[in-house]
Amino acid sequence: MAVGVEKKLELLPVKGFRLGIASAGIKKPGRRDVVVMEVPVDATLAAVFTRNQFCAAPVVLAKKHLASGALPRYLLVNTGNANAGTGAAGLTAAADCCAALAEKTRVDTESVLPFSTGVIGEPLPVAKIVAALDAALDNLDENHWLEAAHGIMTTDTRPKGHSVVIEHQGKQITLTGISKGSGMIMPNMATMLGYVATDAVVDANLLQRLLSQVNEQSFNRITVDGDTSTNDACLLVATGQSGVEVSDLEPALMDKFVAGLREVMLELAQAIVKDGEGATKFVEVRVERAANVDEALKVAYTIAHSPLVKTALFASDPNWGRILACVGRAGVQDLDVDEVNIWLDDVAIVRNGGRAESYTEAQGQAVMNQENILIRVSLNRGQVQESIWTTDLSHDYVKINAEYRS
Amino acid sequence: MAVGVEKKLELLPVKGFRLGIASAGIKKPGRRDVVVMEVPVDATLAAVFTRNQFCAAPVVLAKKHLASGALPRYLLVNTGNANAGTGAAGLTAAADCCAALAEKTRVDTESVLPFSTGVIGEPLPVAKIVAALDAALDNLDENHWLEAAHGIMTTDTRPKGHSVVIEHQGKQITLTGISKGSGMIMPNMATMLGYVATDAVVDANLLQRLLSQVNEQSFNRITVDGDTSTNDACLLVATGQSGVEVSDLEPALMDKFVAGLREVMLELAQAIVKDGEGATKFVEVRVERAANVDEALKVAYTIAHSPLVKTALFASDPNWGRILACVGRAGVQDLDVDEVNIWLDDVAIVRNGGRAESYTEAQGQAVMNQENILIRVSLNRGQVQESIWTTDLSHDYVKINAEYRS
Repeated sequence: MAVGVEKKLELLPVKGFRLGIASAGIKKPGRRDVVVMEVPVDATLAAVFTRNQFCAAPVVLAKKHLASGALPRYLLVNTGNANAGTGAAGLTAAADCCAALAEKTRVDTESVLPFSTGVIGEPLPVAKIVAALDAALDNLDENHWLEAAHGIMTTDTRPKGHSVVIEHQGKQITLTGISKGSGMIMPNMATMLGYVATDAVVDANLLQRLLSQVNEQSFNRITVDGDTSTNDACLLVATGQSGVEVSDLEPALMDKFVAGLREVMLELAQAIVKDGEGATKFVEVRVERAANVDEALKVAYTIAHSPLVKTALFASDPNWGRILACVGRAGVQDLDVDEVNIWLDDVAIVRNGGRAESYTEAQGQAVMNQENILIRVSLNRGQVQESIWTTDLSHDYVKINAEYRS
Repeated sequence: MAVGVEKKLELLPVKGFRLGIASAGIKKPGRRDVVVMEVPVDATLAAVFTRNQFCAAPVVLAKKHLASGALPRYLLVNTGNANAGTGAAGLTAAADCCAALAEKTRVDTESVLPFSTGVIGEPLPVAKIVAALDAALDNLDENHWLEAAHGIMTTDTRPKGHSVVIEHQGKQITLTGISKGSGMIMPNMATMLGYVATDAVVDANLLQRLLSQVNEQSFNRITVDGDTSTNDACLLVATGQSGVEVSDLEPALMDKFVAGLREVMLELAQAIVKDGEGATKFVEVRVERAANVDEALKVAYTIAHSPLVKTALFASDPNWGRILACVGRAGVQDLDVDEVNIWLDDVAIVRNGGRAESYTEAQGQAVMNQENILIRVSLNRGQVQESIWTTDLSHDYVKINAEYRS
């Protein structure tokens, strides 16, 4: 199950960035499970990785290759096997895959960055992946974004992607991205991957700053069950082939670029939440008038992670007591509970820390019956506002996660 | 459903502490839903309350009455209505109940401490409760612990209680306690209540210190879904009527008393976890060789709250990758992941941060098939050990919590 209807993806090519897809038969024969992305020579690249201290082998190696100073030229993604919890053998396996692709493309091994997603704790089938590389390289094409979006899917039920075109003084910049991840973060497949490319010219340091900043407002603002994968990664490549430079010297263009990047990454992140197997609701939790970002997020995540709130959302039950109790236990220092107001969409459910006098169950029920729901909390103690996006906790979530390996 | 078979409770009277039960018809006619406990004049009393900043009206009032300096003489408990989220009217309602009981027993209103558990956000039916007080007072008896254990139940499927007798130099001290709470903390009934009495002589300040300390090791070490109720409370009364004094001057007796108190409170707390509707497993998460208590608990709670771990427990799936990922994202500073070992009972599943070489799925499966499971994590960076107790996440949890109000 997934929330909402599937949108037809129209993904625009990004000049200089080519994608090739192949079937290596890693988990299922015939499934597209290897994707190679080619980064042109003059491009810049930025990356963010999982904060889990147990990093999978490909994450460890990708970071090492980036730190080597070698020019990143190829991204090698496989599904069906996460190469995580695999120890020293896993590192060797990832390195072998990189070396094979490097040899075929005549670049340094350090110019290849590996990414894996799938089952944890099983040895990576290196030979199968290496055997599929020629097919993937033959398939490289600027127009293969949609195919690549399919190629990085695991338990996803839909491909995820988005494009934006920025117009500035008669010039154009294109931004296209794809992602994978199943809203309800899956058993041994708990990986979010995101790949975004643009034809803008962006200095490498600036690119990294923008990726980190926008990642914080997109992939780091979605949550399903609070679990963080060992394999998460998000890459941003600027090919420069539009010839349009984004820099601090041109703030108007910079603003447009950041807005466009945010649109792409937020769309990719929200698509992951909506595609949760078991997800029946898409929920924004917005905390307003907080004293600072930290307390706004504390309250938002306490609500979004509460099994009691999540099961009430699944049941379309406007159970305001559960939301109120989350605000009270979120750990906000010196919270004046009599100042707290809560709305479901525009329906006031809690006013000054108690049930709103105007509130009727029928009003709350009408909002909860929707597929898209906004839970809005005002702490009335500052000017900060933050949103995160989440989903409900359904029978299917338990079913999927309990029965995954059987 | 609940874990394990129901034990027959043998609850010993505590001299001077009487309990009376009545049916007020608060939610269902004929159900025992009002309990009065009488504290003798020379007793001392200690209390701990919920840390949720939204305290229900009875919690606010009980704290106020304790702070007034009045001698606590009666505890008045009702089920079927939590008197939470009820604003100023709720405070008045709670005060009216206390005043009625105070008048009947000729004590100050501040000598009555109110406790409520049940549905949030509905007005407390004061008249019904007041009408039941005479019956409860007529029923007061030192031998009514088991009846009171039934009288404080809401969605609990079993009464919960435990007694311990301490022998010291030919003298005896009795400790008896009862508790309520449904392991899977329930929708609008998310209350844990605990009442423990002893006939020891214990100075009030010492009693509070001991309760706080032992509460930390018992009620504050259980977790089901991470939600904290607005109504939680635990009381400890020392009637003094054994004539045996517990004090810092006699360390050997003090040690026995603390051990006895810990046995009673841990039994009461663990009974709450085992009685989860939807609970099929009783799980200890033990973190060993941590550098400090804080990081040990961080790791333990991250595992215990992970929906992925909890659904794997429900499925009896020895999914070590999920446990490992929790250790990695628990936020332990400078964790050396290569030092982490994990066992299921005595079966090594992770050694030096990777799958243990000796491990077979059959071994893990054998442990996971049990009803009682120990997840043991060694961080190998210190000498601190902490345990918490939790349960699994089952289909029934979602069913119960999604359908509670329908």
